[in-house]
Amino acid sequence: MTKIYNFSAGPAVLPKEVLQQAAAEMLDWHGSGMSVMEMSHRGPEFLSIYRAAEADLRELLSVPANYKILFMQGGGLSQNAVVPMNLVGTAGRTVDFVHTGSWSGKSIKEAARYASVNVAASSQAEHFSRVPAQESWKLSQDAAYVHLCTNETIDGVEYNFTPTVQGDVPLVADMSSHILSRPVDVSKYGLIFGGAQKNIGPAGVTVVIVRDDLLGKALPITPSAFNFQTVADNESMFNTPPTYGIYIAGLVFQWLKKQGGVAAMEKRNIEKAELLYKALDADDFYQNRVAQDSRSRMNIPFYLRDESKNEAFLAGAKARGLLQLKGHKSVGGMRASIYNAMPIEGVQALVDYLNEFAGR
Amino acid sequence: MTKIYNFSAGPAVLPKEVLQQAAAEMLDWHGSGMSVMEMSHRGPEFLSIYRAAEADLRELLSVPANYKILFMQGGGLSQNAVVPMNLVGTAGRTVDFVHTGSWSGKSIKEAARYASVNVAASSQAEHFSRVPAQESWKLSQDAAYVHLCTNETIDGVEYNFTPTVQGDVPLVADMSSHILSRPVDVSKYGLIFGGAQKNIGPAGVTVVIVRDDLLGKALPITPSAFNFQTVADNESMFNTPPTYGIYIAGLVFQWLKKQGGVAAMEKRNIEKAELLYKALDADDFYQNRVAQDSRSRMNIPFYLRDESKNEAFLAGAKARGLLQLKGHKSVGGMRASIYNAMPIEGVQALVDYLNEFAGR
Repeated sequence: MTKIYNFSAGPAVLPKEVLQQAAAEMLDWHGSGMSVMEMSHRGPEFLSIYRAAEADLRELLSVPANYKILFMQGGGLSQNAVVPMNLVGTAGRTVDFVHTGSWSGKSIKEAARYASVNVAASSQAEHFSRVPAQESWKLSQDAAYVHLCTNETIDGVEYNFTPTVQGDVPLVADMSSHILSRPVDVSKYGLIFGGAQKNIGPAGVTVVIVRDDLLGKALPITPSAFNFQTVADNESMFNTPPTYGIYIAGLVFQWLKKQGGVAAMEKRNIEKAELLYKALDADDFYQNRVAQDSRSRMNIPFYLRDESKNEAFLAGAKARGLLQLKGHKSVGGMRASIYNAMPIEGVQALVDYLNEFAGR
Repeated sequence: MTKIYNFSAGPAVLPKEVLQQAAAEMLDWHGSGMSVMEMSHRGPEFLSIYRAAEADLRELLSVPANYKILFMQGGGLSQNAVVPMNLVGTAGRTVDFVHTGSWSGKSIKEAARYASVNVAASSQAEHFSRVPAQESWKLSQDAAYVHLCTNETIDGVEYNFTPTVQGDVPLVADMSSHILSRPVDVSKYGLIFGGAQKNIGPAGVTVVIVRDDLLGKALPITPSAFNFQTVADNESMFNTPPTYGIYIAGLVFQWLKKQGGVAAMEKRNIEKAELLYKALDADDFYQNRVAQDSRSRMNIPFYLRDESKNEAFLAGAKARGLLQLKGHKSVGGMRASIYNAMPIEGVQALVDYLNEFAGR
């Protein structure tokens, strides 16, 4: 079989070592006679898996002691509703949004069911090609929180700075597609969330990191299973958590620690992204339309100058084992997602093909 | 290693063949070079897995063409909120409940956020030891729907009949812990839901079977990711579904078909349950407190007459490879869950131990 490199935006490539361990332990986890899938979530075996995953994630991101880490269900899209349900405090209160692409756009629509929405800044007129400079943001006087999507998976736009917010308005960040790809100062945020299926593990697990003082403010319409206070009080086991997904996430966390943690991953991610952008920028055969200072290290959309060659490009890529490069249907073109688990050899293979296809 | 039998109430035992296939395919599904966990949910590989799972479940339960099958996240507990959000139509409208134990109790509490709740019948005064006879139910004149939990996992109470409802009031059933254990006439219900982690697959997948005419009535506060109409319109892919869990569920559906389908499973489940109840009823050393006609075939709680022997009983069971027999903390005692994937040899091993421990 051809060596495969999987550039899917998510669910996405996982470290081979993690999959090998999962396969080896599938029928009998550590001599328990059970698969992790078969364990009661309240039994000592699964609790040890859960607590190790929580502790490793806390260590990897240096999560301060006054933040809870929750493992929930529903993905980033459901958090777009669950976060305002939990944080607006009073129905209809204002939430500030920075609109930088598809995902922050979805967040705005969803929050409008529970809050009054203020778009403090938007790069929509520039086709989401940059993060608006913070000086231009028109934040409200007394917003419940400010919502950002710090890496737009579809548009390939990433924050290269941590915004500052006046007073004690909490900053809420959807980090689904770049969490654990670089160090982050968690203390600058009130809440961080991420669907697991990019840089953490399988689809179906959602990580929420929330500061203690933001718990306990849920609107009465919040389902118990999505009330952050209830979830926190029950160590993410008020309802049955997605146990197998948490186990895989835990294996990924252990793998990340072996790689040297998020600082080491950031170095590699910079190297990988520079290699790919350099090939895309070499001439005008390919085009990435995002401003240099807002380019994502994780999701790199690009277009062929001559789009009639799209199908031929994708067919040739597939023949070389370079999979899932088709861009999101809403923006077209191509997209290479190069998460933590994508080795530099995969990026090099893509770069070689880009050069070959361009006739360089 | 001792041969293990896992009596967990959920997450619970899975068929060994399913786990073996999952382990074998972990790194490379059908020559794709990818793990199922790494596949885009919109790619042809995962879509084929999804559609086969949907079709097999439809075949196993003879789901009529005018019902949608949805694969969602959140578990049964979140459906306790999601169902009223989607079905009450107008906030505050009445929903009828039959209170037969812990899970229908949780449903009542959760629905009260969105609906006016009428407890049409309850066996609480009898310590949830039976399903109230339908003649005694005091249904409302114009309820949005009638909610039942047709198998109470904690209390060990199962319906042995399909209720009839006057007019066109939809019957909603939480079948989490006995779905696929027996044939069911889906056409008698407006909606059936179940968390996967008992008889379907790993925790994190929730199956909803809903009649077409009940779609499109969601309250404005319903998160898009939990709006049945939105989920149905997008083939359960409005947001990223729990792909790996759906894959495992699909393998379980294939396994069930090979076993002869749900009618064949029912025969075996009757045989297993009779074997176990007979041992519990042999004398008064053990006690199951559920009325004969309401006893569950799936979840069998029991008490030792002399509860000071509980720890010794559990330690002896564990030494014999009989795992997770401790009862739910809310009711104490013991509980043996004997889902589809529990072979009769496991029940026989438990019966042998019951007799041995009782000194018979």
